Amino acid sequence: MSDIAPPVAALIEEFARLPGVGVKTAQRLAFFILRCPTDQARRLSDAIMRVKESIIYCSRCFNITETDPCPICANAGRDQDTICVVEEPLDVIALEKTGAYKGLYHVLHGALSPMNGIGRKDLRIDELMRRLEEGNVREVILATNPSFEGDYTAGFIKSEIKGKLNGASADLRVTSLARGLSLGSDLEYADEGTLGRAIEGRRDL
Amino acid sequence: MSDIAPPVAALIEEFARLPGVGVKTAQRLAFFILRCPTDQARRLSDAIMRVKESIIYCSRCFNITETDPCPICANAGRDQDTICVVEEPLDVIALEKTGAYKGLYHVLHGALSPMNGIGRKDLRIDELMRRLEEGNVREVILATNPSFEGDYTAGFIKSEIKGKLNGASADLRVTSLARGLSLGSDLEYADEGTLGRAIEGRRDL
Repeated sequence: MSDIAPPVAALIEEFARLPGVGVKTAQRLAFFILRCPTDQARRLSDAIMRVKESIIYCSRCFNITETDPCPICANAGRDQDTICVVEEPLDVIALEKTGAYKGLYHVLHGALSPMNGIGRKDLRIDELMRRLEEGNVREVILATNPSFEGDYTAGFIKSEIKGKLNGASADLRVTSLARGLSLGSDLEYADEGTLGRAIEGRRDL
Repeated sequence: MSDIAPPVAALIEEFARLPGVGVKTAQRLAFFILRCPTDQARRLSDAIMRVKESIIYCSRCFNITETDPCPICANAGRDQDTICVVEEPLDVIALEKTGAYKGLYHVLHGALSPMNGIGRKDLRIDELMRRLEEGNVREVILATNPSFEGDYTAGFIKSEIKGKLNGASADLRVTSLARGLSLGSDLEYADEGTLGRAIEGRRDL
């Protein structure tokens, strides 16, 4: 990079810090910025700082929001007795898009991963337990990712609920999302784990 | 995106305008910005605007630069009688890294592509011809990409030189980069075109 103009070298370096962006991609992005209209570059530059300045976490569900509580927690029209527990704010977006869920959320901000040193204190598990202790919730949907870490996290939370909410837990249903074949997928190409779950979870037609 | 906080939605939208960045990648980048240290986000935000504010094109070679003429054109230690013609500023960086070239450059900012409506007026071809008419140049290396457009552009420039610089062109050598097998590549996996060129261009050992 010795012969490249310093501002361009700096931009390439900053782009390359983004996840999944290597040096070649960072170069391509930097040269795109160089050539795009100044307005477009300014919109991107401003949008980056606006996110840092205006986004907070909801003090109830820990989803990202501009207001506290967030619009979903503040919406009295949503089922107040159901909490869907997800790993990331992006999962909330994905679930909201389906239109199939009308309850509240709780964002853990990750999954338990002893291998990577991520324990219960790094996630919003204690805050979830406090919400459940209030006693208004009748169903917790553990919608963590269908991965090793996600399943481990769901299992951990389930045992926490069963252990800590002795009296209350009788009325509290703990569920998880259905596992099976994805819509539009091909049985012949499905992995063994997915196909195994699809057989175990088979339903009457 | 209806339920996502507007500043985050705006950032996702701006990231998705970058080349090769789809909506999913843009979401991932936006959430990375959300979580990264504010300092890092500010550095990226500032680097974007700094590039727009401080980078200009060299009035001789049209490479990107902060000063005019650019450091390469201004360097009296470089061979003033050789011009390497490239499509993009990134090509200059790649050639400089080799350390194998000590002459000047001329950046066309693209390649001729009649299919995409890119003609000679969109490139810096006239400016190249004016540099050659000054009569100090003894070799022009046409280092356009080894693609259809790149070869077409090189052929076009060569015929311009032969046509316009009748008297002067006798002393002007027009060359192109060698074609053949890449270093470390596998003969068995080389495409026919590359292998064909490698045979045509074979050299005595």
